[in-house]
Amino acid sequence: MSDKTKAGSIIEPRVLKGFRDFLPAMEIPKKAIISKLETHFSSYGFVPIDTPVLEYTEVLLGKGGGETDKQIFHFKDNGERDVALRFDLTVPFARFLAQHQSELALPFKRFHIDKVWRGENPQKGRYREFTQCDFDIVGVDNAEADFEILSMMDSSFSVMGVENYQFCIAHRGLFNAFLAHLDILDKSTEILRTVDKLRKIGKEEVASQLAEITGSSEKANQILAYIHKENENESFLETLDRLSSLAGNEEVHTKRMRAIHAYLMKAGIADHFVFDPSITRGLDYYTGIVYETFLTQLPNFGSVCSGGRYNDLASLYTKENLPGVGSSIGLDRLLAALEELESPIVQSTSSADVAIFNTDMAGFAYYDQLARSLRKAGLRVCVHLTDKKLAAQYKWAENNAISYAILVSKEEEEQNRFTLRHLANRENHPNLTLQEALTILQRK
Amino acid sequence: MSDKTKAGSIIEPRVLKGFRDFLPAMEIPKKAIISKLETHFSSYGFVPIDTPVLEYTEVLLGKGGGETDKQIFHFKDNGERDVALRFDLTVPFARFLAQHQSELALPFKRFHIDKVWRGENPQKGRYREFTQCDFDIVGVDNAEADFEILSMMDSSFSVMGVENYQFCIAHRGLFNAFLAHLDILDKSTEILRTVDKLRKIGKEEVASQLAEITGSSEKANQILAYIHKENENESFLETLDRLSSLAGNEEVHTKRMRAIHAYLMKAGIADHFVFDPSITRGLDYYTGIVYETFLTQLPNFGSVCSGGRYNDLASLYTKENLPGVGSSIGLDRLLAALEELESPIVQSTSSADVAIFNTDMAGFAYYDQLARSLRKAGLRVCVHLTDKKLAAQYKWAENNAISYAILVSKEEEEQNRFTLRHLANRENHPNLTLQEALTILQRK
Repeated sequence: MSDKTKAGSIIEPRVLKGFRDFLPAMEIPKKAIISKLETHFSSYGFVPIDTPVLEYTEVLLGKGGGETDKQIFHFKDNGERDVALRFDLTVPFARFLAQHQSELALPFKRFHIDKVWRGENPQKGRYREFTQCDFDIVGVDNAEADFEILSMMDSSFSVMGVENYQFCIAHRGLFNAFLAHLDILDKSTEILRTVDKLRKIGKEEVASQLAEITGSSEKANQILAYIHKENENESFLETLDRLSSLAGNEEVHTKRMRAIHAYLMKAGIADHFVFDPSITRGLDYYTGIVYETFLTQLPNFGSVCSGGRYNDLASLYTKENLPGVGSSIGLDRLLAALEELESPIVQSTSSADVAIFNTDMAGFAYYDQLARSLRKAGLRVCVHLTDKKLAAQYKWAENNAISYAILVSKEEEEQNRFTLRHLANRENHPNLTLQEALTILQRK
Repeated sequence: MSDKTKAGSIIEPRVLKGFRDFLPAMEIPKKAIISKLETHFSSYGFVPIDTPVLEYTEVLLGKGGGETDKQIFHFKDNGERDVALRFDLTVPFARFLAQHQSELALPFKRFHIDKVWRGENPQKGRYREFTQCDFDIVGVDNAEADFEILSMMDSSFSVMGVENYQFCIAHRGLFNAFLAHLDILDKSTEILRTVDKLRKIGKEEVASQLAEITGSSEKANQILAYIHKENENESFLETLDRLSSLAGNEEVHTKRMRAIHAYLMKAGIADHFVFDPSITRGLDYYTGIVYETFLTQLPNFGSVCSGGRYNDLASLYTKENLPGVGSSIGLDRLLAALEELESPIVQSTSSADVAIFNTDMAGFAYYDQLARSLRKAGLRVCVHLTDKKLAAQYKWAENNAISYAILVSKEEEEQNRFTLRHLANRENHPNLTLQEALTILQRK
């Protein structure tokens, strides 16, 4: 192909609006976090599953469709089927449960970390393609399962090296009992959505919207008294008692919350959890505990991990009741937060522990053999594959955030030795044996 | 919702034709293999990247489109953009290179393991959604880079626990030199596609098709003499000499192949590589070495890992020349093969090392504490969350392929002890301390 015809046919390399590439400096930390989470979930006996990216639109949206409709990528495939890209991992999981229930041993604990797609207008930190990290326990409705999700959620944040987070927890069932007690349960969906906006639009605006919904400013004030702690120092159990009493001395959900709290205390993690009755979660399917997670150093960042108990998730696809409790980490938002916090995990972007510089192509077989030996000792070793000038190889190592270089002189090669150079402080260790080098490299 | 309306609105839980769910028994080994490969690639200094699942159709197909067109999932999004699901990881990588070349330090070594989609008619072992595992070295055109890809490919198979594989390697440049020598280079695309079918349709049929393409049965026979080893014991270098001579004593590519072979010899892995001149690879963009990988115990299974050198991959998007060499493992096909071979890696499907049985819900806080201690020692521990009968918990542990159970009596709990039971041989170790249990569990 001549340069002329080539130039004529060049296509601009670009990605779609709201989509993005991950270069190694972002993808290395993303993969490191995912790998830590996978190992951590596995340590609790959670298992991975995978479902198709593309599903029947009807399966994902139900027969109605509704508001989500405009936000999802859907089309007719070559077989004229209505198909759509999944917009979360929850709906495919519900379908999966209904389809495979006879093959699964309940209680079933699963995790699923993968991409989902929504056609929303992209904003800062919001993309049309993003990664969710879901974990759920299905087939059991008790305080122990609720606690285990909260407990694993808590330890997941430690594992990721995230500090200063707070779980805000509430109980949807208790809130509904309260609404029933006020005789306004039929308005619950609108009320929940309004309450959900408390952080954004403030107390006054929520009160006025609630008055409109309920047709009564007295009821609006009663709801406000429920969701808003007057006393900021009110403890978990004090809040629980107050809400229980506002809900007409509700007993069932109150007892559940008390049991969960007792387990959190015994596990020594209760101080990470705050009872925040304004947490409602917009989605209809929650029936028990609900929670959101905030990074205390980034209060305006929004929730990075949310979820709750649902007791009838798969009802669209099966008559079987499948109670569950689960949680979802928004991995892209969390990554963005960790970047802003300059967390060590997002700053570990090196592509290798050691670079072997190529000072003489005739030495390549020796470089390769050396690399093999170092890899056997667990090191990540990158042999430079060109014989560019040393300055260029230094630059290349720097761009790859590599800390050590190996350089080999003819004399060293003959003695099966080499020079190890610490690139940051320019310290040279000449004439090392493999074992001597390993002692230095593994000391790090 | 009443049961009646519920039953009325039930949607059949099902996936699209050619798509599938991965239950834990398949997903656990799939993830294990991916994780091993990622660690292995990283040990060579390869870095991960990620690109969007959805791209502009023009970017993926070029301005023409052509045959691939019917096989890809494409549609108009809500903004009336022509978009398509990627059908491989190579084209998005080419686009990525062109777009980000100023941010990348060459030579650039990347891997990418993820799903791609093709609307082909599903067959045994062929799906419309499947996972590819690509690794490439870009920015350098020499024997050292060619060798490193082959070397990493070879060690990847060991890492996955695959035995009895053979890499069949050839050189597209040498073959083209041979066609030029016969003065039929202009027919190369058709000739390559025909030669590619040798394994499927046999020598005679290939000869007759080649005669038609070249318009000469003499030339057809000359091509056959090139691609078909008369002497099955012909060594790598003997084959190379024969082909070089048939190509009019070609020198450049011959020298490259000789250098690659010398490195394979020095690394002690040359016997895994066979020079098979009938390997051509269908795709147009290869210019140097090409290879396919066969499992010797499943000769009819097709290639599980293929690739080669391309010297102008990103030319659709940039005038910059970006030579590269790469390889792609077809993970689904490989998984299917490993299943057929009953390989240990696909048979490791246990969800945990130990299950803690729940014989008394009042003991749950103790079970949880025990689980935490065992997890700290690196074990995967699943607490059973219901108080179902023991028989049901045994069954559940069996379904999850868990080897050990912990049972706790009231007396044991009081002494901070428990019973460890090996589930397969029903051996009980009563009244153990944590440390005693760890000694048994970590011995495995």
